[in-house]
Amino acid sequence: MNVGFIGLGLMGRPMAQHIAAGGHQLHLWARRTATLDPFRDGPARLHDSPADVAAESDLVVTMVADAPDVEEVLFGRDGVASAGSSALTVIDLSTIGPVAARNIGARLAADGIDFLDAPVSGGETGAINATLTIMVGGDAKVFERAKPLLHLMGKSVSLVGECGAGQVAKACNQILTGVGVVAVAEAMAFAKRSGVDPARVREAMLGGFAYSRILENHGQRMIDGNFKPGFKGWMHQKDLRIVMEEAQRLGMTLPTSGATEKFFDALVDAGLGEEDSIAVLKLIEQEKQD
Amino acid sequence: MNVGFIGLGLMGRPMAQHIAAGGHQLHLWARRTATLDPFRDGPARLHDSPADVAAESDLVVTMVADAPDVEEVLFGRDGVASAGSSALTVIDLSTIGPVAARNIGARLAADGIDFLDAPVSGGETGAINATLTIMVGGDAKVFERAKPLLHLMGKSVSLVGECGAGQVAKACNQILTGVGVVAVAEAMAFAKRSGVDPARVREAMLGGFAYSRILENHGQRMIDGNFKPGFKGWMHQKDLRIVMEEAQRLGMTLPTSGATEKFFDALVDAGLGEEDSIAVLKLIEQEKQD
Repeated sequence: MNVGFIGLGLMGRPMAQHIAAGGHQLHLWARRTATLDPFRDGPARLHDSPADVAAESDLVVTMVADAPDVEEVLFGRDGVASAGSSALTVIDLSTIGPVAARNIGARLAADGIDFLDAPVSGGETGAINATLTIMVGGDAKVFERAKPLLHLMGKSVSLVGECGAGQVAKACNQILTGVGVVAVAEAMAFAKRSGVDPARVREAMLGGFAYSRILENHGQRMIDGNFKPGFKGWMHQKDLRIVMEEAQRLGMTLPTSGATEKFFDALVDAGLGEEDSIAVLKLIEQEKQD
Repeated sequence: MNVGFIGLGLMGRPMAQHIAAGGHQLHLWARRTATLDPFRDGPARLHDSPADVAAESDLVVTMVADAPDVEEVLFGRDGVASAGSSALTVIDLSTIGPVAARNIGARLAADGIDFLDAPVSGGETGAINATLTIMVGGDAKVFERAKPLLHLMGKSVSLVGECGAGQVAKACNQILTGVGVVAVAEAMAFAKRSGVDPARVREAMLGGFAYSRILENHGQRMIDGNFKPGFKGWMHQKDLRIVMEEAQRLGMTLPTSGATEKFFDALVDAGLGEEDSIAVLKLIEQEKQD
């Protein structure tokens, strides 16, 4: 299959490589042309615009930062939609708001282009190891066609519902991982400040109802003091802003998500946004010590 | 061994039965004498005071509601400490504050009585199935002696540190389970309000970094609308009050624990304290609908 891939960042690059390794012909374009360098000597074909990528592709994957970036790639000058391709499918792997995803799906449908919102979870490690969790919204038939391709990048791939449902699931995922990271940091800091070894507290909790992948993985990294991303603090701030904007629109109050969003704001304000989101531990440990 | 057991409530009763089934001679006393009824026709010996229990026991287990209850049983009139037993060990399985536990340990030590703080996690189901997680603080030699007995009640039994460390670990455990329950409720309510099936969202998340036992178990019960305790809302409120009082004393700010404590206050204020703590879902779903 001819597969376009736009968005060759930290996560996008290994994901595109998995698609090529799966036997597909890659078609690439990048706003930051340096991100194309790892692909220059391979079989991938490089193009001058998203429209050129779309003209040669059966399916175009986008993996960019935020809704305006997706819209620019799809609907901007020389965007994917301007190629006038028929029988094209677009899969957006970016994390954006559910409303934005539904709007994009509707606009593409008007041009006869199929669309799946398919945000991923698992970070750079998951992208490199092709063990991402991929949460998909869209038409079931389009999903079945795209599934083998998604499985080249992810271990757990599921259709959650109609267009936008992938982003709703991702928002729920970011609630649990965002709140989870802060809660684990609170527990580890509480143990330490109480004079008890956080490693032994973590160990005691792993066997019980408090078990979570966040406690297992991020808890260990907090104990090791390893703040290398992983998943950057400012990215989690962005994702929780999406959650809280959507909650506001839906008329919902989300107590722990709201507290977590504010705490990620404080993390970025403290200049720690480029570190892994587990750097919230530093903020909790320094609280009221000044 | 002669084992005293005081506190035959929902959890205490099956735990005492496990000890008897393990071949030990039970010695019982209860403030609410009705809780003794299931033991009247068995081999357990019933006594008129905690002191009488202590006089016949090598080891006394307490499993009561809060620090004042533990102190009353141990140091009140005809309390355990007044028996003047030598070579006695007291194991408190109740959830109380770390400072209260350290004070109790010091007072018992002055009377030559060994003490372990050994709060449990896993609720009534864990008590019935002897699958509790038991987090222990105290002397390593006392712990090694008590370990076989604790394993009659719990699957995961660990010495976390010195006296009080069990309660510190339990506080950390209650941070993760309390915050976790509210966060899962937020995610399930967010999916539903967004028009997406919470069951499919939960399913999509279980395979990824958002996985937690709370999502697996309590998430399913939220979907089923099963609010039967389990672990009552007012109990989690009490446990988080302990966490936040201790955090205050330590000069710490705990953003998600604080938000969760306030939300459990709201749960109890709304008259839902006797339901399982997953009833926070009802509060989130009704928010701003009036």
